[in-house]
Amino acid sequence: MSDNEKPYDMVVFGAGSAGYAAALRGAQLGLSVALVERHKLGGTCLHNGCIPTKAMLHAAELADQARQAGDVGVRSSFQGIDMDALHAYKNSVVSGLCNGLTGLVDARGITYVEGEGRLSSATSVDVGGRRLTGRHVVLATGSVPRTLPGLEIDGRRVISSDHALTLDYVPKSVIVLGGGVIGVEFASAWSSFGARVTVVEALPHLVPAEDESVSSRLETEFLKRGVTLHLGVPFVGSEYTQDGIRVRLADGKVLEADLLLVAVGRGPVSQGLGFEEAGVVMDKGHVLVDEYMRTSVPTISAVGDLVPTPQLAHVGFAEGILVADRVAGKTAVPIDYDGVPRVTFSRPEIASVGLTEAKAKQAYGAGNVDFVVYDLATNARSRTLRTEGHVKVVRRKDGAVVGVHMIGDRISEQIGEAQLIYNWEAWPQDVAGHVHAYPTQGEALGEATLALTGKPLHLHV
Amino acid sequence: MSDNEKPYDMVVFGAGSAGYAAALRGAQLGLSVALVERHKLGGTCLHNGCIPTKAMLHAAELADQARQAGDVGVRSSFQGIDMDALHAYKNSVVSGLCNGLTGLVDARGITYVEGEGRLSSATSVDVGGRRLTGRHVVLATGSVPRTLPGLEIDGRRVISSDHALTLDYVPKSVIVLGGGVIGVEFASAWSSFGARVTVVEALPHLVPAEDESVSSRLETEFLKRGVTLHLGVPFVGSEYTQDGIRVRLADGKVLEADLLLVAVGRGPVSQGLGFEEAGVVMDKGHVLVDEYMRTSVPTISAVGDLVPTPQLAHVGFAEGILVADRVAGKTAVPIDYDGVPRVTFSRPEIASVGLTEAKAKQAYGAGNVDFVVYDLATNARSRTLRTEGHVKVVRRKDGAVVGVHMIGDRISEQIGEAQLIYNWEAWPQDVAGHVHAYPTQGEALGEATLALTGKPLHLHV
Repeated sequence: MSDNEKPYDMVVFGAGSAGYAAALRGAQLGLSVALVERHKLGGTCLHNGCIPTKAMLHAAELADQARQAGDVGVRSSFQGIDMDALHAYKNSVVSGLCNGLTGLVDARGITYVEGEGRLSSATSVDVGGRRLTGRHVVLATGSVPRTLPGLEIDGRRVISSDHALTLDYVPKSVIVLGGGVIGVEFASAWSSFGARVTVVEALPHLVPAEDESVSSRLETEFLKRGVTLHLGVPFVGSEYTQDGIRVRLADGKVLEADLLLVAVGRGPVSQGLGFEEAGVVMDKGHVLVDEYMRTSVPTISAVGDLVPTPQLAHVGFAEGILVADRVAGKTAVPIDYDGVPRVTFSRPEIASVGLTEAKAKQAYGAGNVDFVVYDLATNARSRTLRTEGHVKVVRRKDGAVVGVHMIGDRISEQIGEAQLIYNWEAWPQDVAGHVHAYPTQGEALGEATLALTGKPLHLHV
Repeated sequence: MSDNEKPYDMVVFGAGSAGYAAALRGAQLGLSVALVERHKLGGTCLHNGCIPTKAMLHAAELADQARQAGDVGVRSSFQGIDMDALHAYKNSVVSGLCNGLTGLVDARGITYVEGEGRLSSATSVDVGGRRLTGRHVVLATGSVPRTLPGLEIDGRRVISSDHALTLDYVPKSVIVLGGGVIGVEFASAWSSFGARVTVVEALPHLVPAEDESVSSRLETEFLKRGVTLHLGVPFVGSEYTQDGIRVRLADGKVLEADLLLVAVGRGPVSQGLGFEEAGVVMDKGHVLVDEYMRTSVPTISAVGDLVPTPQLAHVGFAEGILVADRVAGKTAVPIDYDGVPRVTFSRPEIASVGLTEAKAKQAYGAGNVDFVVYDLATNARSRTLRTEGHVKVVRRKDGAVVGVHMIGDRISEQIGEAQLIYNWEAWPQDVAGHVHAYPTQGEALGEATLALTGKPLHLHV
């Protein structure tokens, strides 16, 4: 192991969203940075997560539209999915973004090293016979799909999201185990592609972290689309059948399908990487950090899916940026995780920021919370798009907006405005005074805030 | 003429966007309100403008996608437009919204009178043998398509937007006279439907009110789509041919097509309605108003396309609300028209708020203005949507954002966030600190503001 390389200001272990953000920002602030990655620059999000799933979901949208365009006067037909073309499209999006990122890492003078790394001390990472030493080390090794005890992912009939993204056929039928973000995104895409889809979720609702109004609406829309739901029913076991897989549920029901997608969450990648040996305190595989992303070892920070914060690429960005700022001696501001936007790209889409109604009532008392639900049926643009859904705005009585919860086709893009409203602690009247553009979906947010001031324009109150 | 009806607090003459907003808000504030309309509740926007064009443009989007879905792995084909189905869809959207509005007008206790109205005094409107008297009268008679001197709209080969919306066939070829918002929306839709489209604009650019970067990009995208452009060339004259129409331009070029759409703007509806007789001061057919929408007659206000402010439905809403607030004795705040969002629903879409780069430089001096152009090629979500475009943010040096200019598929829905940024006089760092949701198009706005603080995440600077 050669250790005569010049030490870096910062060695980043893992080049997913959190790691590369730390590296890019660090370099921008004048730090010398080394970036270590075992797989590919961009990590899970770019190669096995956000981006390929969004490509798949865009194809899913076009498949639905090709089927339904006749209703709006466009003669078209859907003749199935061409998996080779879908993968080519998906891969071209990924490789285009990866090339851009590679150029950026180069341009900022970051030393990028590909290979299996290991934390070899409180200030060094070993990779491919090389020891990279840093004044500071940032752990950003990410996460991988989890499974349940006794349920083996074989990559053929029992698959994870990694396999689902490279499948070379559309399954006739699929059981999705887990109704969280990942599960509902795949369920949605496969359903659009023509598969019979069943979702099994042990908790009583799909996307259980969302406001209950949103979960219920998603369930209604999924049922309309022909997706079968088993909610509030734990998985008991599975066995292979001649051509597929059989799943047993706690309520005695037995389901069969070609495929079982295990989407029960993602667990941190932290075993055998030298973290414990260096004295990094962990819990259930997660590296523990304070609000400045500091681990128990003063020279080591940790960011991204490795730490027990929301598993979102842009949380990784924010955490990576925070650490780089801190290491560079700039002011670092702790992240308000409630203020981080959350988006699920199913059909319909879901977007939210801040507290659910239930959490707001817990936080402030039921009597101190107000909310309005604005149905997209009243929104002109949503009617032309023929989507159903709603925008729910939760506020403190005589106070700021504390939560925005939205569901509907294309609603994900409203999250930017909602995010500013929440994070700037705006009161409904601060928004309501600005008449929104007609006819946009964004009017729903404007109307909801108008309604909270007692003066909706297009709403019965 | 019976004039023994009980007087109203407010008589609103015209039930388009501006008029019905005044009526609805007035009723909400406890005023007794009469609302007069010669055609249909909802006016131009709902019946002959915003809404039917958006339905047409949604069908256009689906037509393009049906053609191009193969590129993303969706086997589909485009077999033409079914005009009956398109009109049925469009009409169902319009009638659904119209029913909603009718219910709202009823529920708020507004007296709605359909018929040709006439201002009969400073405090009354006559309609169908009835005299509606009001403490205050609000003129909101709207606008109709204009033409050029010597160019007669025959409704068959030389048409206005009104005719274009009810056309029962897709023209093989069409010349669009006027490259403003209305012209480019129809050009875009017809091009998607398969027509050969030529746009003629006397000014040097399409959508000449937009930032030049946006106009140029739209021109590039239209050319890629096969739309022919004649820019900076005045129309000279036209004549009928055997099957269509021939158009002569100032540069000597002669164009032929099935149809000529005259989209040279809309003029106010104000002649013969008793305005002059009541002492209302006008200019070129527009009723003149101060910043509180007051005309020269103390008991008369005017709002919407009738006054020389931007011809946008939501400007009408804002003006109507302002007048109702004023009449009801509430605080009325003059409208900052630069802060009103502007959207063009062509493909690609355009959305902007605040000052263009050129106007900002005029206002503050060229040396005091900064801007960033963020290309959507770097935006992950835009890549999955396969759209090109950009987001340009203009700021005062060491100061607030004073303009946001965006172009790209689906970019219209970013205008809500941009509108808050402009109207709340946010500095780039006020936005940049809030990491946007990945992967959304909204990140482009986040990245542009990050770049203006000198620290873009995904951008070479």
